Amino acid sequence: MAVLPPGIDADVFARACDRFAEAVGRDWVLTSDEDLVPYRDYWSPVPLAEEELLPSAAVGPATVEEVQAVVRVANELRIPLYPISTGKNFAYGGPAPNLRGSVIVDLKRMNRILEVDADRHFALVEPGVSYFDLYRHIQERGLRLWVDTPDPGWGSPVGNTLDRGIGYTQGFYRDHTGAQYGFEVVLANGEVMRTGMGALPGSRTWQDYKYGFGPDPSGLFAQGNFGIVTKMGLRLMPQPEHWRNGLVTVPRRRDFAPLVRTVNYLTDLGLIGEPWYGSPLRALMTDDAFRRAATRRGGFDEAELDRLAADNGLHSWQVELQCYGSEGTTRAAWEYAKELVRGSIPGARVTDGESLPVPLTEEQILATTARYPTNMRRNVTQGVPSLEIWSRLGRTEAMPESWSQGHVGLFAVIPRTAESVFEAQQVFGDTLRELGLESGISAISTPLNWHQFSFFFSAGFSSGGGNADGTVEGKRRTAEGLEALLEKAAERGWGEYRAAPYFQDAVAARYSFNEHALRRFNETRKDAVDTNGILAPGRGGIWPARLRPSRRDA
Amino acid sequence: MAVLPPGIDADVFARACDRFAEAVGRDWVLTSDEDLVPYRDYWSPVPLAEEELLPSAAVGPATVEEVQAVVRVANELRIPLYPISTGKNFAYGGPAPNLRGSVIVDLKRMNRILEVDADRHFALVEPGVSYFDLYRHIQERGLRLWVDTPDPGWGSPVGNTLDRGIGYTQGFYRDHTGAQYGFEVVLANGEVMRTGMGALPGSRTWQDYKYGFGPDPSGLFAQGNFGIVTKMGLRLMPQPEHWRNGLVTVPRRRDFAPLVRTVNYLTDLGLIGEPWYGSPLRALMTDDAFRRAATRRGGFDEAELDRLAADNGLHSWQVELQCYGSEGTTRAAWEYAKELVRGSIPGARVTDGESLPVPLTEEQILATTARYPTNMRRNVTQGVPSLEIWSRLGRTEAMPESWSQGHVGLFAVIPRTAESVFEAQQVFGDTLRELGLESGISAISTPLNWHQFSFFFSAGFSSGGGNADGTVEGKRRTAEGLEALLEKAAERGWGEYRAAPYFQDAVAARYSFNEHALRRFNETRKDAVDTNGILAPGRGGIWPARLRPSRRDA
Repeated sequence: MAVLPPGIDADVFARACDRFAEAVGRDWVLTSDEDLVPYRDYWSPVPLAEEELLPSAAVGPATVEEVQAVVRVANELRIPLYPISTGKNFAYGGPAPNLRGSVIVDLKRMNRILEVDADRHFALVEPGVSYFDLYRHIQERGLRLWVDTPDPGWGSPVGNTLDRGIGYTQGFYRDHTGAQYGFEVVLANGEVMRTGMGALPGSRTWQDYKYGFGPDPSGLFAQGNFGIVTKMGLRLMPQPEHWRNGLVTVPRRRDFAPLVRTVNYLTDLGLIGEPWYGSPLRALMTDDAFRRAATRRGGFDEAELDRLAADNGLHSWQVELQCYGSEGTTRAAWEYAKELVRGSIPGARVTDGESLPVPLTEEQILATTARYPTNMRRNVTQGVPSLEIWSRLGRTEAMPESWSQGHVGLFAVIPRTAESVFEAQQVFGDTLRELGLESGISAISTPLNWHQFSFFFSAGFSSGGGNADGTVEGKRRTAEGLEALLEKAAERGWGEYRAAPYFQDAVAARYSFNEHALRRFNETRKDAVDTNGILAPGRGGIWPARLRPSRRDA
Repeated sequence: MAVLPPGIDADVFARACDRFAEAVGRDWVLTSDEDLVPYRDYWSPVPLAEEELLPSAAVGPATVEEVQAVVRVANELRIPLYPISTGKNFAYGGPAPNLRGSVIVDLKRMNRILEVDADRHFALVEPGVSYFDLYRHIQERGLRLWVDTPDPGWGSPVGNTLDRGIGYTQGFYRDHTGAQYGFEVVLANGEVMRTGMGALPGSRTWQDYKYGFGPDPSGLFAQGNFGIVTKMGLRLMPQPEHWRNGLVTVPRRRDFAPLVRTVNYLTDLGLIGEPWYGSPLRALMTDDAFRRAATRRGGFDEAELDRLAADNGLHSWQVELQCYGSEGTTRAAWEYAKELVRGSIPGARVTDGESLPVPLTEEQILATTARYPTNMRRNVTQGVPSLEIWSRLGRTEAMPESWSQGHVGLFAVIPRTAESVFEAQQVFGDTLRELGLESGISAISTPLNWHQFSFFFSAGFSSGGGNADGTVEGKRRTAEGLEALLEKAAERGWGEYRAAPYFQDAVAARYSFNEHALRRFNETRKDAVDTNGILAPGRGGIWPARLRPSRRDA
């Protein structure tokens, strides 16, 4: 299975590996099939096929200087590099590169927590620092700070931020790209650059103010390939004294519209943390009549759905709200939420949840919640990284068995309105059903409000054996089906916020306004600063000139 | 006073103006001295000197297509352009360009409000839309939305955002660059590009999610010169039901440290809006003994300052806090603030302020506040643009007379700690006193907490007749003094967040980490996408290759 970078023969590659070894030490240049297994995409839609995004090698620099040395060698010999931090985001391609034959730059050895400030609420970390590392560091020092963590928590703040990851606490902190406050990067020419206030030598405000002075290129590093990030600042949330939640349910399908408006209002005033939408009707999906109504092609019958809900004594929608602050401020926020809901939605029910001093005990975090039929991942609402999600979602009663054989994250950004959610339920549901793909999308699918001002609607899908047929060909057909779904979404004005390398060209291709003006603008600048096209070719849909023919254009 | 672009002779310039007239109409190409007066920097430190940043002409396109046509002409004939929206930010150079002889592209005719969404809380506007325009539009439609507005409000959201302007309401919304959600720009090659979800044709979420997919270049347009922004989305704050404020004062100088920590905590949890720091000791600045102690060179005597405060029965520091939400949530937040202050600062006094349903009446907005000795600009806490600041701050009892003859905004970003404030008081105060410049900086100067996570410390200064001598030479000496101040700040690790064109090179020069790696990275990409160097040469300290010798390097 030995793979070489495109256009590089075995001799040159061997020379490159020797040079990498000079830079980082022989032990940290991995080339054997066995050593490279951890750098494969475990859930690849094309495992072991000619187009599987396999690396040719992996190198593990331990310092900024070693990263620079690796980049210089790559430049000289035209070796494509693909930097990763922990590489554990399997639904998004894991550690595998966009370009088959790239050399993985595994930054896990750069795992220093350089600064955590308890009064100003920020951290400065290296790319190999995981959410667990940062959480433990804060606990050990007894600091009252929270890290907004993704789920599971084995990834890194740097990697997650650079992939535009999200979290589950108070609005601002959930947008990890927004909460980034300062980068240090090794550029394609091997130079070190700092963004924001970090560009000022001896700066004392690198993590206080993100823009610095003049044009700010920091947006080019997320989902991009303009540099290898070697340090990153991030804002931390001060640990609140108290946490409280509560449940709102509304009876009829159409009540979702005022419910969303009310939650938008509370969210945008900063009075609540991540709202968690769901539907009590989920319990009816084992009922044939209901399931037929909820997966009807071509348009749902609102009256029928309302009647089935009423017949079963169930409400149509629910949202769990959570508030951070003091006992008093969280109580006032929840009381206000109740008042607004009651005033705008006839028949709405509001149920007080828990009201707990922070930090929650382990028991409180792990408590199962008979009151809420949705699965609760309370750890992430408390800034506590965990691997608990695997034992919960990995169970077949929680997720179709095929999903545990590999699934791909695809979430469309849709308008933060009930109307858009209804439309997405129909369009994505019908399309996946037509394609013969399992999706779980129905008339009761609800949006994710991870990012403060957007709804993400899941079109995540299995690439395992449950649908298709579990063979490479079956997985490939699934992937092709998904690309068709992207087109359906684009026709409606919806685009994806994130994708695995295998799908990035297809996702990026839809952001084509004015004959791909944005992509051309990015690629022109990419060519100017990465003249040999060595840094993460293809990442975010951006290819350097010499490799543009490699683009899997849709 | 006729001025030509560098290297352009009168014939070519006349031809350019004819071509501009073909693009936008003869009436919208201004070249006479009289017509160009409004495009001068009213407060220039070098008025009518050879280096005054005078334009050669102004053109006024009314549509995106006209902007494209202007850019194409400029490219062909190598004419430098400088886009402005309202050009009214006088403390930052007003409408004047970075490069003498540039042609102003005045976008005031592009003044359409394209969308305001009351459920999703955003607007999409053209560059000529002022804060007044947007505010009035919202009022006329009866929408419950606020625009976080600067003071005065005659500027535009686009111009203010592109200069990294700030406001005075709830944290997130005060960072206008952060609240930008989507640009349309005309690039230097004349093409139109959209960022974020706007790159997806027919996108329905341009203002819901800002990053789109792949690397996001939107940071290059603020304080930058990578394109002419022709449309911009911005997040709006939902109008809260209730507003409340209150005053905290603390007795001793050292109490500022726990006060700042407490306010940081409340701010970062989103429980309060902009905090407004001040000092009750301001009343003592007319007292000789106190003024001497508060302006002592080389180090303040904390014990002496505390004794003078105590002798006069005054507290040392104050902060006005404000809360947005419902009657209940604002009450709970203020009660929590009181509890935290009392618990951490012995002798602190807390005074309930006003508690008012929103929208405030005009009378409530304009009310003078006997209770608070700081000047209150309540309109901006309520999202109401105004010109009131001129009648308040223009008065000689509020500001040294010389300031009304012109002042320059310079604010250093300093760490959000009391220690840094004390250090800045001493360093900036001593430096300005040594330079013989009026500053008003003393041991009781307080930081601005406009940007949520930073303190800005004012080194704004007069360039009028009050110090220096009111002559061009006097103003020039003042400006030179200020450049010396920038160096003093940089030695301490402090940089400016914003500057007038005349000072931009000097400010940018301090962001020099690794031999100006950031500037070189920006300029390499600038050269790649603006091959003739026509777009706002010099803006943000970024010069195109052919004009880099023009840089006023410090």
